[in-house]
Amino acid sequence: MATMDDIARQLGVTKGTVSKALSGAADVSETTRKAVLETAVELGYSRISRAGEKKQLCVFVENMAYQQPEDFGWELITGFRKMAEPADYSVEVVPLDVPMQKAARYDEYMLRNNYTGAFFLGIPLSDPWMQDFKTCRTPTVLYDNWIKSNPSVTHVGINNDEGMELIVSRLKELGHRRIGYLGGALGAFVYQERYKAFFHAIRQNQLEDDRALTGVSYYTSECLERHLPRLLKHGCTAIICSHDLLAHSVMVHCGELGLNIPRDLSIVGFDDIPLCRYTTPPLSSVRQDRSNLGKSAFFALSSQLNQVPISSLQLHAELIQRGSMGPAPAGRPADAT
Amino acid sequence: MATMDDIARQLGVTKGTVSKALSGAADVSETTRKAVLETAVELGYSRISRAGEKKQLCVFVENMAYQQPEDFGWELITGFRKMAEPADYSVEVVPLDVPMQKAARYDEYMLRNNYTGAFFLGIPLSDPWMQDFKTCRTPTVLYDNWIKSNPSVTHVGINNDEGMELIVSRLKELGHRRIGYLGGALGAFVYQERYKAFFHAIRQNQLEDDRALTGVSYYTSECLERHLPRLLKHGCTAIICSHDLLAHSVMVHCGELGLNIPRDLSIVGFDDIPLCRYTTPPLSSVRQDRSNLGKSAFFALSSQLNQVPISSLQLHAELIQRGSMGPAPAGRPADAT
Repeated sequence: MATMDDIARQLGVTKGTVSKALSGAADVSETTRKAVLETAVELGYSRISRAGEKKQLCVFVENMAYQQPEDFGWELITGFRKMAEPADYSVEVVPLDVPMQKAARYDEYMLRNNYTGAFFLGIPLSDPWMQDFKTCRTPTVLYDNWIKSNPSVTHVGINNDEGMELIVSRLKELGHRRIGYLGGALGAFVYQERYKAFFHAIRQNQLEDDRALTGVSYYTSECLERHLPRLLKHGCTAIICSHDLLAHSVMVHCGELGLNIPRDLSIVGFDDIPLCRYTTPPLSSVRQDRSNLGKSAFFALSSQLNQVPISSLQLHAELIQRGSMGPAPAGRPADAT
Repeated sequence: MATMDDIARQLGVTKGTVSKALSGAADVSETTRKAVLETAVELGYSRISRAGEKKQLCVFVENMAYQQPEDFGWELITGFRKMAEPADYSVEVVPLDVPMQKAARYDEYMLRNNYTGAFFLGIPLSDPWMQDFKTCRTPTVLYDNWIKSNPSVTHVGINNDEGMELIVSRLKELGHRRIGYLGGALGAFVYQERYKAFFHAIRQNQLEDDRALTGVSYYTSECLERHLPRLLKHGCTAIICSHDLLAHSVMVHCGELGLNIPRDLSIVGFDDIPLCRYTTPPLSSVRQDRSNLGKSAFFALSSQLNQVPISSLQLHAELIQRGSMGPAPAGRPADAT
């Protein structure tokens, strides 16, 4: 592993300058500091904690509410803290923004801010640091994102294949044979996973594997106005949605079209957000245990810090069946396949 | 959680009898012991360790050599021990056999033998306990097997999608466009996974997704005599095999057919067994870090014992490129797709 001497030698400065630059001392110019940080990252330098110094971890959040107990991110962060703090790490929560990310490469940012590792929530595939994750050396855990080959990056999430299989096999037991899928655009890793998982579960259950029964879009309105009528025309008696908010919109829109849920059509979401219990009828969904996901994220980080690089850590999915899911309507051919 | 009193009440015997039956005392009849164990399992009883008593874990092995350092199972077990023993567990290694498994349901066997949890190596989908794993309550980790929905069972293995993607994208860089797959029969979970991963990686790399370029069989001879000629006839310039021993047989057989490896045909295996370095030419393969897999299996168990049930824990795959992999032959159309 590179030392401060290596960095000093490479840049032709003194070790004192390197030390000051790394510790953020005021009497080093910003140009020098940037050069030192960049060289430190290139050489694979990592800070050694002084005795008694608490190691710091960072939770970066984007596109996700987390400040109230009912927010999606709350339990993810609380679960993470519950493991990290007793293990003597301090945890900071930092909302991501593009200008900050463009100002520094990821490893540089982490070194500059003295973070040992990070847990990322809610970042899209278009995030500026996604490129950096391919080669970064900072121990990093991504919730619902996955990076090929880099041993420093771990994916944590629920098993979407299992979740989808639970929905499809339950719908099949209820007599459904033509099951549709509506989902968010494939620019997010988790929607790619659920879209693939849908086809996988349909084939696993020997049902009709037909792209016409699926539709994805960035816009809810496009799912409702363009895709939903096609699914209904093709005789879907059940629709699985990639996330609960979309499922809720589909349910409301179907109500406006005069359909009775679940008598005419069953609807199932994903994530089991608190809203599900309060919709009319209550929305069936696949639960993610967010507190345990947060705990697992800390485990994955500490496992990396102990040189056991995990690629992916998935928790079990659980189907929560509520009023939006019922037997297939008797009027339609239940065995159309 | 059920207590000894609950078991005694259910069976109409004294608590003393239950205690004796559970501790394996000699003055309890086998019939009574069996009734007590069955009731204990049904009621979800689990033994509480006495102060100072070491908790025991079991590694069950089937179809896998493990007694010498060069055996496939050696590092899996050693890695597991390296984590478990310092954490104050004792570890026993037990070869599985069908008569033993038919004599007792899994949970019963574990309770009777006072094991807190288990790590299974090498079991096929036809194993008699596979049914029990769907509902068992004993913390259990399966190497290269996966069970739907049961929070007590965790899968540990490498990320086969990643491994396959690494091979296919490297072969594509080397100019290969028609890539074939030969594999073990789909009666083993890991061969199912690699077969699916092959199609996934082929599509990911925009190559031709053609079932005629694949063949699977329980018998190596069938792969060589029935499937291999078809792959060659269809113009494959590279063949990926589900495991190294099959890849080695394919390589030897192709030599006999007068093909030069890798000039005429590239061959890649999976698992990176020690043999790979000594074949002619040395066999390219996807490495599994078996020591880290063993360590992760212990983590998955202890995570379950702490009520964080992991569904699947995958380690990164790594492509080890050796002499059996080379540029696509110039004579054939490199862009047949």
